[in-house]
Amino acid sequence: MTDRTDTRTGWLSPDEIADARERLPIVYVNAVPVRITATGEVTHIGLLLRAAPDGTISRAVVSGRILYGERVRDALLRHLEKDLGSVALPRLPLEPQPFTIAEYFPDGSVTGFHDPRQHAISLAFVVACDGDCAPSQDALDLAWVTPEEAVSPGVRAEMAGGHDRLVRLALGHVGQLP
Amino acid sequence: MTDRTDTRTGWLSPDEIADARERLPIVYVNAVPVRITATGEVTHIGLLLRAAPDGTISRAVVSGRILYGERVRDALLRHLEKDLGSVALPRLPLEPQPFTIAEYFPDGSVTGFHDPRQHAISLAFVVACDGDCAPSQDALDLAWVTPEEAVSPGVRAEMAGGHDRLVRLALGHVGQLP
Amino acid sequence: MTDRTDTRTGWLSPDEIADARERLPIVYVNAVPVRITATGEVTHIGLLLRAAPDGTISRAVVSGRILYGERVRDALLRHLEKDLGSVALPRLPLEPQPFTIAEYFPDGSVTGFHDPRQHAISLAFVVACDGDCAPSQDALDLAWVTPEEAVSPGVRAEMAGGHDRLVRLALGHVGQLP
Amino acid sequence: MTDRTDTRTGWLSPDEIADARERLPIVYVNAVPVRITATGEVTHIGLLLRAAPDGTISRAVVSGRILYGERVRDALLRHLEKDLGSVALPRLPLEPQPFTIAEYFPDGSVTGFHDPRQHAISLAFVVACDGDCAPSQDALDLAWVTPEEAVSPGVRAEMAGGHDRLVRLALGHVGQLP
Repeated sequence: MTDRTDTRTGWLSPDEIADARERLPIVYVNAVPVRITATGEVTHIGLLLRAAPDGTISRAVVSGRILYGERVRDALLRHLEKDLGSVALPRLPLEPQPFTIAEYFPDGSVTGFHDPRQHAISLAFVVACDGDCAPSQDALDLAWVTPEEAVSPGVRAEMAGGHDRLVRLALGHVGQLP
Repeated sequence: MTDRTDTRTGWLSPDEIADARERLPIVYVNAVPVRITATGEVTHIGLLLRAAPDGTISRAVVSGRILYGERVRDALLRHLEKDLGSVALPRLPLEPQPFTIAEYFPDGSVTGFHDPRQHAISLAFVVACDGDCAPSQDALDLAWVTPEEAVSPGVRAEMAGGHDRLVRLALGHVGQLP
Repeated sequence: MTDRTDTRTGWLSPDEIADARERLPIVYVNAVPVRITATGEVTHIGLLLRAAPDGTISRAVVSGRILYGERVRDALLRHLEKDLGSVALPRLPLEPQPFTIAEYFPDGSVTGFHDPRQHAISLAFVVACDGDCAPSQDALDLAWVTPEEAVSPGVRAEMAGGHDRLVRLALGHVGQLP
Repeated sequence: MTDRTDTRTGWLSPDEIADARERLPIVYVNAVPVRITATGEVTHIGLLLRAAPDGTISRAVVSGRILYGERVRDALLRHLEKDLGSVALPRLPLEPQPFTIAEYFPDGSVTGFHDPRQHAISLAFVVACDGDCAPSQDALDLAWVTPEEAVSPGVRAEMAGGHDRLVRLALGHVGQLP
């Protein structure tokens, strides 16, 4: 999962984040971007291609921290815009409840969701995007894959930290798990 | 809840519907039309004004039967169009699960949902409408009310059959129940 | 999916059911029985072994019709008892909303859920059973499988009509889809 | 919402918690304890009577922090046991998704959920308790109220910080909102 250093008063410096990460669960959002039909059926899932600090490359869904004082909806929108650009036209869900809670631990064997840096509790949402999505910031590419492709061994192997499973949970939630 | 006689082969005549209604639970959809903000928060609920066969007038949400061979999504879209017009631009939910199941019985004391004609099992959804909504067919009027207005004693008293409660359940689902 | 002829006044004879099935969607419940840990995590899924009228044998979850005048909860309990025996101690969900709606069509290509006899709309629930479960009535056997086994190609191939997919959707809902 | 100072290595001292609270959203769980019928319908809601540090007394649902390294389920169980005693026999939900996310802010006007000390993001669950529940620790009393009583003006006025609304959202989720 990715963060940006934020300079607004009251938010954390990189050192302070590093410290907090060893002491508290950090709240995240995950957003699975999707393309839908006129009747709301999911046809494609958007996967970002990212380079991790250690040089490895993997496919991932949108993710990021919720900041102090920030609404969950605003964090979702901010991270979608950060990763998909400003004309993605994301349609946030009407309801506040996520489709799942992904619990990322430094020890990946606890839940299957793995984050070497921290204990992160992530509220995960499926978000339909109607507009033009372009990978921005640290994303190298954005690929739209069908549900069948998303659960194929090849694509699954390209995702890390449990994002492949998160994608399957998202597909199950919208009734499109093959 | 309302029906239209449909003449497609294999569907039921009014007499046959009357007969089936005494023998089988009939499957319905309920749709609560809403207006939302750019971040997906519900600000208003659309209530139709209807005249019942007995001359009484009441406020209600969109409702109607699912036909033989019809997908739930298609039934939702058909009834939304029937009641709100063809340019309402309804945004169907991505997920197949309704926010609640309303069980209407001829005896209103069983569940609080009441339909004198039948045992109806209704899949209820909240549907954001971005376009122009105009009451059509047998609806006399369409009013957009805030969540506060929707739960006020005055507006509650204008709804029949448990639709006032369905509206509160919808507001709860989207986190906007006052 | 299975039915029993019911002789209570107002319910349907086999002929009448056959007739209604050609004209109306029929409402069903599906229940995926599960074993859980002390903290509510699903560890096993119960699959029934059934012989279909045509002699084929397959694994399936609990399913059956909702009768006229019957509450959804009562139908769930009745079918769980019918298939798992009277001491299964099923724990019905607190909330009325199913985890998914499975739409079964005579043409299996519409949704992937297939019922050659009818258009059935099924409310699907995950139900924890604490007691002794024994296959009863027309079930030949009951097997408890782990989530990993439930999604394995071998077990998937033993299920028909889309029940293998329903099981995966159930596992996704409870966060245990491998 | 309540915390306990925890002395396990890696967890926070009261001073450190105070510091983190000014910088990061803190993750909480809320649990609404309920009594249910044999078919899973909610009949009563459990409300704790608490004295706040400033001496005011109010009714509240179970709540508390999720600790570093702690699973959401384990946090739920720990706080239920802390507030209701060790023989409450809570039945945790099978699914990881909360029925709502309550966002508590020092400024209560942002969402209606108010916590003067911090920005807390709370995962809220309804939990059936079959056993004997006794108020423990800092709770003065535990009262079981019906859904009608829970939404009455008198009981609503006894709750603070938005817990009255959380109770209504919980009742809506289980279909028992009057």
